[in-house]
Amino acid sequence: MAIIECIPNFSEGRRPEVIAAVVDAVRAVPGVRILDASSDAAHHRSVLTFAGDGPAVKQAVLALFGAALPAIDLRQHSGEHPRLGAVDVVPFVPIEGVTMEACVALAKETAAEVAGRFALPVFLYEEAASTPARRNLEDIRRGEFEGLAARLATPAWTPDFGPAAPHASAGATVMGARMPLIAYNINLATDRLDVAKKIATAIRMSSGGFRYVKAMGIPLEDRGIVQVSMNLTNYEKTPIFRVFETVKREAARYGVTVLESEIVGLVPSAALVHAAAWYLQVEGFSADQVLEHKLRQSE
Amino acid sequence: MAIIECIPNFSEGRRPEVIAAVVDAVRAVPGVRILDASSDAAHHRSVLTFAGDGPAVKQAVLALFGAALPAIDLRQHSGEHPRLGAVDVVPFVPIEGVTMEACVALAKETAAEVAGRFALPVFLYEEAASTPARRNLEDIRRGEFEGLAARLATPAWTPDFGPAAPHASAGATVMGARMPLIAYNINLATDRLDVAKKIATAIRMSSGGFRYVKAMGIPLEDRGIVQVSMNLTNYEKTPIFRVFETVKREAARYGVTVLESEIVGLVPSAALVHAAAWYLQVEGFSADQVLEHKLRQSE
Repeated sequence: MAIIECIPNFSEGRRPEVIAAVVDAVRAVPGVRILDASSDAAHHRSVLTFAGDGPAVKQAVLALFGAALPAIDLRQHSGEHPRLGAVDVVPFVPIEGVTMEACVALAKETAAEVAGRFALPVFLYEEAASTPARRNLEDIRRGEFEGLAARLATPAWTPDFGPAAPHASAGATVMGARMPLIAYNINLATDRLDVAKKIATAIRMSSGGFRYVKAMGIPLEDRGIVQVSMNLTNYEKTPIFRVFETVKREAARYGVTVLESEIVGLVPSAALVHAAAWYLQVEGFSADQVLEHKLRQSE
Repeated sequence: MAIIECIPNFSEGRRPEVIAAVVDAVRAVPGVRILDASSDAAHHRSVLTFAGDGPAVKQAVLALFGAALPAIDLRQHSGEHPRLGAVDVVPFVPIEGVTMEACVALAKETAAEVAGRFALPVFLYEEAASTPARRNLEDIRRGEFEGLAARLATPAWTPDFGPAAPHASAGATVMGARMPLIAYNINLATDRLDVAKKIATAIRMSSGGFRYVKAMGIPLEDRGIVQVSMNLTNYEKTPIFRVFETVKREAARYGVTVLESEIVGLVPSAALVHAAAWYLQVEGFSADQVLEHKLRQSE
């Protein structure tokens, strides 16, 4: 059975009854399982994480829009987090038994249906983007809800689906497909912040490092140590073990050792299985050999 | 949801229609999934691997006895593999969301029901054993079907459940609980068999090595290299990464490097997740952070 994760971000972080109604609408869809829900009042935003197979996830997204759109009016909304729409961003993420291509197709299909049913402009982003200019969420969201009408009026920003004018209360939505993100930190046995910053510079894409690494060096002041804090945005192409080994080697250059690492939140099993297979030098290993994986296949 | 694996060995490896009937009886039980079935004509024996939660697995074992006992007569049976009964051995193995204690309880409960329903002597072994003398399968099976009547007549070999006399055609059964077994081999970049044998001696329990390792050194003649061939019988207490690192270190003593390793057949996800967490020095990691694990929990 395919497992697709979906992490909609919607622009309500203060009214518990609205948040609960949106979450409940998703939970009511058969075959969907809620993994996490977190709200931030200052951001005035909530992030929901759920999973299921393609048809279930699509139904759940439609149900989410059905619950969120009548309850959220961006004309009355202000928070710290940038946003373009009442339902701001909806990524589809392949977890198991499903390709990225299938998630892109699902994103497009869902985007078309949302745009038609709710008369809402929808942009496709990341792996589903129609042009490189629309790959990054930040580029699409520039100007936010308040600048949306002017933006949609320019030919370069015709939405991928739906009308070329904002939905009065709900703005627009960004939908797409991306790899799961792993929040991964490595703590160094030193208080030298410059070392953490130099390592972060060495490994992140933006300064010449690995393609799918975002990183910064930060102090953990209560512990008197420093941390290389990272997001790994594609564990298949930039695997966790390569990042770990590189950080360890760069730290050694300064006479510093790795104290420990930490994974924040969820991690796909495949990312760890790949790491085990790499360190153990396992040749010819297949995911089908993982007992639980095989069990799910035979469902 | 709990996942228990069950690997019954039954004494039929030649008549395809009997083997199919036994496998079908298990497959027909709701909630049970067949993972593997293999038969050996020379051994005159089949090994079935299936999984499910406790109640499903118990039902499936009862169904298996119901199909196997009328069809298999040990008085007409001879093969290379030692056997005590028509259904020879039935281990229950904890895979996920279930403790060893629960598997021991399930083994005892199922053993009592099988003994009562089929008037069959049943011995408990491994983690379910009632005395240390009954822990090892080989000790219980000594003398095989042919010596069973004499053995059952001695006070030391009163069965744990059922009559103290063999079932005329089905003999007796050994039932119990054990950890999953990992078949793990490490190939060395040398043709020196003495090195593989010395390493096997160093790491296996029987000659002073790790408690849950069985190992031997063998040549892979077609490739001109040697292999340390192992069974890891408790990956929680003797983890795969410790064995790998020890083999690598012992090989280095002889100037030999590890070429690769291989996992034969199935491996529980937890064994690889632990290895990844160890190599990556991940602190405070919980199985709940593995996305698929969390998904199954919320089922």
